[in-house]
Amino acid sequence: MTTDRKYVEELIEQEDDFDRWYVEVIQKAELADESPVRGTRVIRPYGFALWENMQAELDRRIKATGVQNAYFPLFIPKSFLEREAEHIKGFAPEVAWVTRGGDKELEEWLAVRPTSESIICPMFARWVQSYRDLPILINQWCSVVRWEERPRAFLRTLEFLWQEGHTVHATLEEAEERARLMLEVYRDFVESELAIPVIPGQKTESEKFAGALRTYTIEAMMGGKHWALQSATSHNLGDHFGKVFDITFLDREGKRRYVFNTSWGLSHRTIGAMVMVHGDDRGLKLPPRVAPIQVVIVPIWRKDEERRQVEETVDRVRAMLRRAVRVHADLRDDKTPGWKFNDWDLKGVPIRLEIGPRDVASDQVTLVRRDVLGQRQAVPIANLVGAVQSELESIQVSLFRAARAMLERYTEDVRDYEVLKERVATNAGFNRAFWCGDPACEARVKAETKATVRCIPFEQPAELEPCLVCGAPGKYQVIWARAY
Amino acid sequence: MTTDRKYVEELIEQEDDFDRWYVEVIQKAELADESPVRGTRVIRPYGFALWENMQAELDRRIKATGVQNAYFPLFIPKSFLEREAEHIKGFAPEVAWVTRGGDKELEEWLAVRPTSESIICPMFARWVQSYRDLPILINQWCSVVRWEERPRAFLRTLEFLWQEGHTVHATLEEAEERARLMLEVYRDFVESELAIPVIPGQKTESEKFAGALRTYTIEAMMGGKHWALQSATSHNLGDHFGKVFDITFLDREGKRRYVFNTSWGLSHRTIGAMVMVHGDDRGLKLPPRVAPIQVVIVPIWRKDEERRQVEETVDRVRAMLRRAVRVHADLRDDKTPGWKFNDWDLKGVPIRLEIGPRDVASDQVTLVRRDVLGQRQAVPIANLVGAVQSELESIQVSLFRAARAMLERYTEDVRDYEVLKERVATNAGFNRAFWCGDPACEARVKAETKATVRCIPFEQPAELEPCLVCGAPGKYQVIWARAY
Repeated sequence: MTTDRKYVEELIEQEDDFDRWYVEVIQKAELADESPVRGTRVIRPYGFALWENMQAELDRRIKATGVQNAYFPLFIPKSFLEREAEHIKGFAPEVAWVTRGGDKELEEWLAVRPTSESIICPMFARWVQSYRDLPILINQWCSVVRWEERPRAFLRTLEFLWQEGHTVHATLEEAEERARLMLEVYRDFVESELAIPVIPGQKTESEKFAGALRTYTIEAMMGGKHWALQSATSHNLGDHFGKVFDITFLDREGKRRYVFNTSWGLSHRTIGAMVMVHGDDRGLKLPPRVAPIQVVIVPIWRKDEERRQVEETVDRVRAMLRRAVRVHADLRDDKTPGWKFNDWDLKGVPIRLEIGPRDVASDQVTLVRRDVLGQRQAVPIANLVGAVQSELESIQVSLFRAARAMLERYTEDVRDYEVLKERVATNAGFNRAFWCGDPACEARVKAETKATVRCIPFEQPAELEPCLVCGAPGKYQVIWARAY
Repeated sequence: MTTDRKYVEELIEQEDDFDRWYVEVIQKAELADESPVRGTRVIRPYGFALWENMQAELDRRIKATGVQNAYFPLFIPKSFLEREAEHIKGFAPEVAWVTRGGDKELEEWLAVRPTSESIICPMFARWVQSYRDLPILINQWCSVVRWEERPRAFLRTLEFLWQEGHTVHATLEEAEERARLMLEVYRDFVESELAIPVIPGQKTESEKFAGALRTYTIEAMMGGKHWALQSATSHNLGDHFGKVFDITFLDREGKRRYVFNTSWGLSHRTIGAMVMVHGDDRGLKLPPRVAPIQVVIVPIWRKDEERRQVEETVDRVRAMLRRAVRVHADLRDDKTPGWKFNDWDLKGVPIRLEIGPRDVASDQVTLVRRDVLGQRQAVPIANLVGAVQSELESIQVSLFRAARAMLERYTEDVRDYEVLKERVATNAGFNRAFWCGDPACEARVKAETKATVRCIPFEQPAELEPCLVCGAPGKYQVIWARAY
């Protein structure tokens, strides 16, 4: 039998090697596993249950804005992908090509979708005739493929799961409103459900989506190296795609016009974000709102006569809680309670309930929060449902607060380029600095430090200071950081 | 403005050309659309909402048997697909091959999954060590690709949506039990939710899944030509995959053994089944349990002062119903009520509520069932929620009864091969007949009539009669029919 200590010792400490910790915790917590297909990962049931909870909540929020789900083909003919020049330039190096079907060479290669603008736009062109057909608001849950030589579970894999929204509108203003609305949906979802504070803003020209007029983003700070993770993006595509795919409509005056598009996506890399933002040396800490198991019950007994009593109470407690929360009772009889504590800590279950003979005698349980080490409270079974619900809410809030404290602590106003270099080199976090808007300054910082402009935050200071790099008048305050 | 008649006349009648009717009704009801990718279809929001309702209910039923969802890579290395000899023989002619990633030729081709046994089995081999790890019960919702030159929306497309379940067990008996259990889940789902009666049974050796020990199936009879549609299958894979993928475990006695697998799937072809089983010359008839819109409200008014009153009542009725059913109010002001009636009939919405000035005056609505032509009832608004719920249940039952009546009417006991030939040639339905079990007789019938053994029903008569083809002693009663 595995000893209690051994199990925890197996996970490397964050400080020793954060990247290695990330790989290990995902593997050991059974979120995902290696796969025999280069560049890909298998999402195991525990990881997929997490994704399903995220999907259900995000899907509800997306539909509440009037969007409908649909499904478009996985394959995109090469000529379609090539129609928008910027778009193909951006995606061509990453495309997986189907060149054979059954026994035949294909006349035209098919791309496995890296993103679906170029297959959805031709359909919009069929469906849009008059202003009465607008807007069309579509979302698709699927996987996409981008050739990737250096995979990292959830963050960067050859194939990844996401949702991609695609809309068409009569005016640029309406498209802009939709692009901003969806970014706000993402911000609220990531902050409220995943307990991750983000900085919403706009991407620079060099960082925007291939083919977009403007790209909006939410950027989060990860634990460990305090690098940035782009957590979702929303694009105002202007009329670029309307023109190349000839999507037109007759307006109220009977005049033919091009439509304006948006697209927006959030992927399973946000699972990686939760791992890196909330995790610690004991393993994952999952936000209660999306955790596959919110409460785990561990029975504790030594003698057989204790076992019967304890397991009866476990059954009763589980039945009580089941209506209110996602609860699991760990009845394995080949593991010690201590081994189980470590296992569920590693898997990030927010609340553990221990039930032993003394608890049974006092009609209580011992409640332990994953986020507060060493704190144990006795809760009378009569009050348990309410107590568990309020502790779950409290954990959700405290995870968000801890993440916000980290974001604040590792974000600094930088007014000296040398300081920026030093901070980036030592993984010291986010750097708020002024920028003149010249791509040359942006390119120089990237080349010299590997940091990029994560975004131009929507929230700008009243007074602008000179560009950090060239000293010319500043146009924006931006966030410089290294990113996954 | 479109006239009311024109709209209905646009749909061809079933009797004139059932296959053409099928294509048209799917297009006009906006379930799916043509796509620029050969062999594929786009699933439009109305069709996808139907699939989502089906998914939610089937997913609930699958999980209730202890199965967990997960996600495996879309791509399968060629060498993996080739490991089980029967399996590759069955699927090779239908595989789409990725031969290039980004700018490079791949060293090993990747199949776009036609089914996932050969990518999931290597993972089972990693996850299974001891009898304590068994069974593992996994399900995946995804799309699969099988090269298809003669596509038909939902029934046969190059890419299709489905769920595929995969399990590993310690014994053949347990695998058999699981394969039969999942077929029963499918039978109950298709009969209860989709209102389609099916015949559960076993496939013959020549019709079973490539690599399976035994394949079970549910077969339904379609309208129009009364052909069969295989609506879901469940396979006991024996230890074929355990052996080639080397999935072994230590049993309680410490002896190493091979596992036994099952796999089972239901695809979006069941949407096609609903179209063909329930549809009529006016369009779709969707079973209430899965219909995206269960109740549509159509306001009727001529003068503006009527409009205000009527639309107020529409709002009130919609708000009342919303908590209980999926309701939509059709407030378009560029369509006549008659046009809307036809449109929603075409889309198969089970109940229409008409609200005009006289209804408003009497505090009632006029309820019209999609499945009973020409029948209209006045329902007091005070009783509406209960009345609508009970009518929806009644429609669900009556659709199933009508489908069962069709199945019974077009199924006959056939004891003369010439009669079978005649019946198959005239699309006269299902043919119950005895078979000696010799593949030669089976092959002969298929070659001479194009009919296949749809299944050996679980329910067998007490007395067996001679083989329809050769006159040798009959081994089974089987169903012969042409199939989609």
